[in-house]
Amino acid sequence: MAMDEFALIGRYFRTAQLERAADASAVVLGIGDDAALLQMAADQQLVISTDSLLAGIHFPERYPPAELGYRALAVAVSDLAAMAATPLAFTLALSLPAVDEPWLQAFSRGLATAAHDFAINLIGGDTTRGPLNIGVTVLGQVPNGQALARAGARVGDLLCIGGPLGDGAAGLAVVQGKNVPTGLPMAKQDYLQQRFWRPQPQLALGLQLRGVASAGLDVSDGLLADAEHIASASGVALHIDAVRLPGSEALAAWPELQQLDWMLRGGDDYVLLFTLPALAKPRIAHWRAAGHAISVIGSVHAGSGVLLDVGKGYAPLTGARGYQHFRSLDD
Amino acid sequence: MAMDEFALIGRYFRTAQLERAADASAVVLGIGDDAALLQMAADQQLVISTDSLLAGIHFPERYPPAELGYRALAVAVSDLAAMAATPLAFTLALSLPAVDEPWLQAFSRGLATAAHDFAINLIGGDTTRGPLNIGVTVLGQVPNGQALARAGARVGDLLCIGGPLGDGAAGLAVVQGKNVPTGLPMAKQDYLQQRFWRPQPQLALGLQLRGVASAGLDVSDGLLADAEHIASASGVALHIDAVRLPGSEALAAWPELQQLDWMLRGGDDYVLLFTLPALAKPRIAHWRAAGHAISVIGSVHAGSGVLLDVGKGYAPLTGARGYQHFRSLDD
Repeated sequence: MAMDEFALIGRYFRTAQLERAADASAVVLGIGDDAALLQMAADQQLVISTDSLLAGIHFPERYPPAELGYRALAVAVSDLAAMAATPLAFTLALSLPAVDEPWLQAFSRGLATAAHDFAINLIGGDTTRGPLNIGVTVLGQVPNGQALARAGARVGDLLCIGGPLGDGAAGLAVVQGKNVPTGLPMAKQDYLQQRFWRPQPQLALGLQLRGVASAGLDVSDGLLADAEHIASASGVALHIDAVRLPGSEALAAWPELQQLDWMLRGGDDYVLLFTLPALAKPRIAHWRAAGHAISVIGSVHAGSGVLLDVGKGYAPLTGARGYQHFRSLDD
Repeated sequence: MAMDEFALIGRYFRTAQLERAADASAVVLGIGDDAALLQMAADQQLVISTDSLLAGIHFPERYPPAELGYRALAVAVSDLAAMAATPLAFTLALSLPAVDEPWLQAFSRGLATAAHDFAINLIGGDTTRGPLNIGVTVLGQVPNGQALARAGARVGDLLCIGGPLGDGAAGLAVVQGKNVPTGLPMAKQDYLQQRFWRPQPQLALGLQLRGVASAGLDVSDGLLADAEHIASASGVALHIDAVRLPGSEALAAWPELQQLDWMLRGGDDYVLLFTLPALAKPRIAHWRAAGHAISVIGSVHAGSGVLLDVGKGYAPLTGARGYQHFRSLDD
């Protein structure tokens, strides 16, 4: 192996200008030293999240590297949106089976596109030979006390969702060419593929929710599994009305039961699920007017767990509630 | 697979009390939400570093998991020491081929011991099925403007090292049972194995260097390779006097040429290499009196690169200068 890890990072990720994708005024020292150095604003708290992406677990074994680069960062940044934070910087820990130049070029290009889209700079990382493994740690900031946590939902709050559900799972089906309705127009196939490969973290919505929403997260494991996280952290029961779940036009090409299953259990949607005090309900109309596709899908009650009404009244759930990463693509 | 990633993290890493290994007052929100939340002090800058450890690259294919847990964190924390920072928190991105409970118990125990030793709390992470890959991101803090970077060495400065060189490579030889002198006493074998598995980041020395040393880093790739990083970032030449390189008593069991090779090119020592303005020379005696085993091994000159004197005058180097991770254990 002629090229060492330093050269790898230097060549591809610097050429892609990943360290200058956004305003870099917070970065005191970036790539190339033992560690990076950031200057935080005085009234902000630091938000940190780490995600690993592995082939066959988080994305199909066959994939376009540029899409993968985009997705790796988008998925991690979604955790910042889920905390109502603004992106600051990220590090990349990349294990690669070999130094494949076209792969690295495409991957870093996709990563750079995402970095520009989400206004976040690469500040460091590590590249090693090994089975493909993409580790992204994102750093963000949020004004003191305004982060959106999973705990905090209160009885009487509304349960809201920031966008359509089920597109991530339908997008994966299209990407894999499995279970796709015959005659699904190319435009809808493209839309769904984009939803899978290029999820759009709801950063702008997160900012709106600061100091207003009582609890929230991003839907990555599936609505039911993620609703359970809020219910459990907040010590409440969440009621979800299946008929109110928002699905895209493209999703409507599948049979109704498949749509519902993906909206409830499909992962990878990366829309925000949050609870809103009833008094804040008038804000929803304003947010919608500003382009946020928010739906009220249920409400918060005393008790525990998630109860779903599919037309026969609210009933607790049994069985698998979401995709688990250990088997998401093996099913 | 019955157990999902949340249960894994929850069970082993919480039982090991990794999230309460040290003062947790900076941690506003730890493991279990979309992201962790930290409160920084107003006059501090944030220091971030990411490392990945892979079997066969960074450690032997056969290894004791408790030692591995310790080493994974120690190696990452060493980058904080290299910046003169104090540890704040870390995240863990762990890929495992299977849920092996004894392995997880031992690994988390070793990790917890390191977390206590270095006063750092686990605040989040991610566990996935895949080939063994240990990603650690450490966060630390340093007073504004006092971080120790690689750039900053000036002509006339002294080049110093914070402890013995070559023990990491000799320790690996003992761990692998390769190239070990017959009759090497068990106590010295133990010492060297500990030096490999339980490197001690020089955090206390880092604090002493704040505002005093002009440049610095930790020796992880080998003295010559790391000296080259300082020379290149600072735009100077570094002269190293081979006869002044400090080696341990245990290392002295090997032939002299092997000792020298490991001191110059062996990685994994994790001692601090730094440059010191000549005016600060009197501090060295104070630091030594306080228990820091500092040696002056050379000096900073106009020019570029690293020049080594092995008894025939200073000469520039050619050929491989350090271990590269892509082949460190394959040689």
